[in-house]
Amino acid sequence: MTEPARHSIFDQGLEQNPANHVPLSPIVFLRRAAEVYPERLAIVHGEQRITYAEFHARCQRFASALEARGIGYGDCVAIMAPNVPALLEAHFAVPMVGAVLNPINTRLDAATIAFILEHGEAKLLITDRELSPAVKPALAQLGRNLPVVDIDDPLGLGGELLGEMDYEAFLEEGEAGYVSIEPRDEWQSLCLLYTSGTTGNPKGVVYHHRGAYLNALGNVIQFGLTPNSVYLWTLPMFHCSGWSYTWAATAAAATHVCLRRVDPALVFQLIEREKVTHLCGAPVVLNMLAHAPDAVKRPLPNAVRVMTGGAAPPSAIIENMEKQGFSIIHAYGLTETYGPATACLWQEDWNELDLTAKSEMMARQGVANLTLEAASVRDPESLAEVPWDGQTLGEIMMRGNTVMKGYLKNPSATAQAFAGGWFHSGDLAVRHPDGYIEVKDRSKDIIISGGENISSLEVEEALYRHPKVLEAAVVARPDERWGETPCAFVTLKTGAEATAEEIIEHCRRAMARFKVPRTVVFGPLPKTSTGKIQKFLLRLQAREL
Amino acid sequence: MTEPARHSIFDQGLEQNPANHVPLSPIVFLRRAAEVYPERLAIVHGEQRITYAEFHARCQRFASALEARGIGYGDCVAIMAPNVPALLEAHFAVPMVGAVLNPINTRLDAATIAFILEHGEAKLLITDRELSPAVKPALAQLGRNLPVVDIDDPLGLGGELLGEMDYEAFLEEGEAGYVSIEPRDEWQSLCLLYTSGTTGNPKGVVYHHRGAYLNALGNVIQFGLTPNSVYLWTLPMFHCSGWSYTWAATAAAATHVCLRRVDPALVFQLIEREKVTHLCGAPVVLNMLAHAPDAVKRPLPNAVRVMTGGAAPPSAIIENMEKQGFSIIHAYGLTETYGPATACLWQEDWNELDLTAKSEMMARQGVANLTLEAASVRDPESLAEVPWDGQTLGEIMMRGNTVMKGYLKNPSATAQAFAGGWFHSGDLAVRHPDGYIEVKDRSKDIIISGGENISSLEVEEALYRHPKVLEAAVVARPDERWGETPCAFVTLKTGAEATAEEIIEHCRRAMARFKVPRTVVFGPLPKTSTGKIQKFLLRLQAREL
Repeated sequence: MTEPARHSIFDQGLEQNPANHVPLSPIVFLRRAAEVYPERLAIVHGEQRITYAEFHARCQRFASALEARGIGYGDCVAIMAPNVPALLEAHFAVPMVGAVLNPINTRLDAATIAFILEHGEAKLLITDRELSPAVKPALAQLGRNLPVVDIDDPLGLGGELLGEMDYEAFLEEGEAGYVSIEPRDEWQSLCLLYTSGTTGNPKGVVYHHRGAYLNALGNVIQFGLTPNSVYLWTLPMFHCSGWSYTWAATAAAATHVCLRRVDPALVFQLIEREKVTHLCGAPVVLNMLAHAPDAVKRPLPNAVRVMTGGAAPPSAIIENMEKQGFSIIHAYGLTETYGPATACLWQEDWNELDLTAKSEMMARQGVANLTLEAASVRDPESLAEVPWDGQTLGEIMMRGNTVMKGYLKNPSATAQAFAGGWFHSGDLAVRHPDGYIEVKDRSKDIIISGGENISSLEVEEALYRHPKVLEAAVVARPDERWGETPCAFVTLKTGAEATAEEIIEHCRRAMARFKVPRTVVFGPLPKTSTGKIQKFLLRLQAREL
Repeated sequence: MTEPARHSIFDQGLEQNPANHVPLSPIVFLRRAAEVYPERLAIVHGEQRITYAEFHARCQRFASALEARGIGYGDCVAIMAPNVPALLEAHFAVPMVGAVLNPINTRLDAATIAFILEHGEAKLLITDRELSPAVKPALAQLGRNLPVVDIDDPLGLGGELLGEMDYEAFLEEGEAGYVSIEPRDEWQSLCLLYTSGTTGNPKGVVYHHRGAYLNALGNVIQFGLTPNSVYLWTLPMFHCSGWSYTWAATAAAATHVCLRRVDPALVFQLIEREKVTHLCGAPVVLNMLAHAPDAVKRPLPNAVRVMTGGAAPPSAIIENMEKQGFSIIHAYGLTETYGPATACLWQEDWNELDLTAKSEMMARQGVANLTLEAASVRDPESLAEVPWDGQTLGEIMMRGNTVMKGYLKNPSATAQAFAGGWFHSGDLAVRHPDGYIEVKDRSKDIIISGGENISSLEVEEALYRHPKVLEAAVVARPDERWGETPCAFVTLKTGAEATAEEIIEHCRRAMARFKVPRTVVFGPLPKTSTGKIQKFLLRLQAREL
């Protein structure tokens, strides 16, 4: 609706001032937690235990040390580390001086790391010893002098120290009681996160203070975090700043339990020892926990809520985890949306469904989060909303305050992503009559066979229901007659044996004939560090079959 | 800290656009609840039951009917009603057309109502039949033609219809599917709420969309509201828009249970019948529930969380309610802070205290809410923070996004309230070593006897611990020798008898001699509609003793 320009008595003498307007920023969450709950356990890392007062004091020293080196407004600080306290602390200390944090994916190769350090114009790199095999050659390729601080974590395996000093010594350089710089405004840049980009150079997604603050509050509400929660870091913090849980769990004054690697034995140990109540992870992490050997599994000491996303979870995985007592929430989002943007919120009438039917409902991507303005499925060209019929394919589009500022130094990609006033996710989906969104595929993953669209996810969903299948991925294989046909890559459970015919027969019983894979290949699946199966590699493989 | 002006690569090509920036507004909470939980019960009012889809549709019609009458940006719509659906709906429908809602205290006299309608420049009044005895003469005094819509609620008692039509007929005028006008910006005015102002004309506090959105999210987190919560309206919605719970409970997609008057029998019935999980109220409401006759009390069907505030709750009241199974959170705030600004958050080490000691801890005003930037105790002149010693008296001051825009048409009061970049609450308090704020008195309620400050709240706290005392209030009585001495007004429990000497003796055992009341007066206490004891009336009375 439009409205005529009008003036009103409510426009006069009621201006913003320092008492009634403050830029939204996630930095305040730490200051408040330290003030209200100084003695509460903030971070657990192996035997190290850090209270909220200490967490805040360490970040003050960290920020002060940055400032002493001339790092300030709009400067980029890169960090390359697994889930250790330094990476969590960086999410507060770096913005405390007005700088921008650039957490780098720890599985990247030297060339990509060098590209990122160059593109983001990092002024300082903080890097974990264990990652030196990739970081050392990256620094050599960079061709400029970049100050480096090492995280010399006793829990890290091997590697060498590359920098001028250790992180703990760096903190000692800073002064206690450092007072954070308030952001100039809440649109100020906060983080720089490169998308994994399966082809070409990665794009640098830029977050702002406002979005991080709001997504954190939304996450606290959605995931039910309280000061009594214990959050286990099974999700990499470099991935969308840990889906904003770096800030959200701190806003709730919950306990962060660090974890360098997702080893199921260690995960079950920590759940038991630290009384973990919340964890996040890609479906591949859940699958790992669901299929862990019985010897490492332990009974849950309390209710454990698990948020999964980053890839569509086959309902069989949800079902498995629920059977073990975990309570699953399925969220959907992208790096561009600070992680979670939608969630498959529970509906009361699902209580009457059996576990399989429930899991199928829960495997959908759901509805917009409270702090996102809108998520909808639209025609990629006309931007018209698709009917809520569970059939019509469109692209998931979002708008709201928890959508990125744009891509760094990439105005054309930014303009494309925001065309028509909506953020274009690149994910193809339908909208069900109940308003729930269901992803059918990435635009590039859809298989077109004889002119018919085949959702690779639908075929995978059926494969995961085969009792011998551990993991599955389906991609297009070029075909002279049909254009493309579905090609399945399958990993069987330990000790299981199956033939391609057996798998194909199973699919025939589950779906229309044209959707059934023509080819089945057995073996392990290539994955990114965040657990996404690398379909582009499988697609190359399928082409050469 | 200050910092030099700098430019950065993060300032370029990363501007706001409709995909990544939307004004924060509580209107979206209703739209989302209707989309995600259309069939969930939104409002219960007697036998009437309204789902979220219906709640939203009714607000769309309401907004459309307003627009059809030319009401739009910056216009004021006044409403005078107890806690009925129309008042809740007005909190969404009026801002949907860009207008400002002015909920009026239902206990006001005709002259004050006329003053408010004149000062706020209301373009429409919606009023409940039962309130016509005050509204009719107010309209006569107003001296201009103001369109009136009646709420003709079957649950209302008596009164007459004053307007051109009934509220339900008014909704029928509107069109289904009306699309809300997005606020021009999030600073847009949302509500106008007059403070009860014990002397002189009331001041019109103006709220904005941003503040209501943020305080609602803060409330959802603080009070633990979820879609399964059932919120009972024991707090008047006209009071700080129901401490923002009009918006917060809707954001959570919880159920609102309306209540026209706080009748303990009805409250216990509704708690049982509707399975109420949350309610708010001034200490006087809690006292009413705690001392309700056994015949009307019923066992709680589930956990019931109670937020109290609006006046300092004597710890005896907290103790009584906790004994009955209610779980109390003590919040503090003012109309100027959208209701709750601080809360007395639970600390783990209090678990070991006995109930009396716990209740004393909980009777403190606590710490700043998550969505408020800061609450502190400062010297009223220098603005220096007082030491956290539990002794030094200062004024509670706040800053943050959940502080009002200012007072309507009152730049001098606005400037005074915001002097030095802090909102001045007018409440005198100390800060304890644990950072918790404790109110000692309103500036004007402090008693100065022989040069010593006496907190009237401290004396009242002791009086409430006397087994025969139901309610108590202490004010200054002029005294030739001491300047002032404490004068106690006491209401005894039904059937109880006591002498002034007995009460004074009880106080002697509890406090320093100079603080003990010299005078004790027995009888009922005068109260405002929100349950605040009207000390200015008692002060006049004390003067004439």
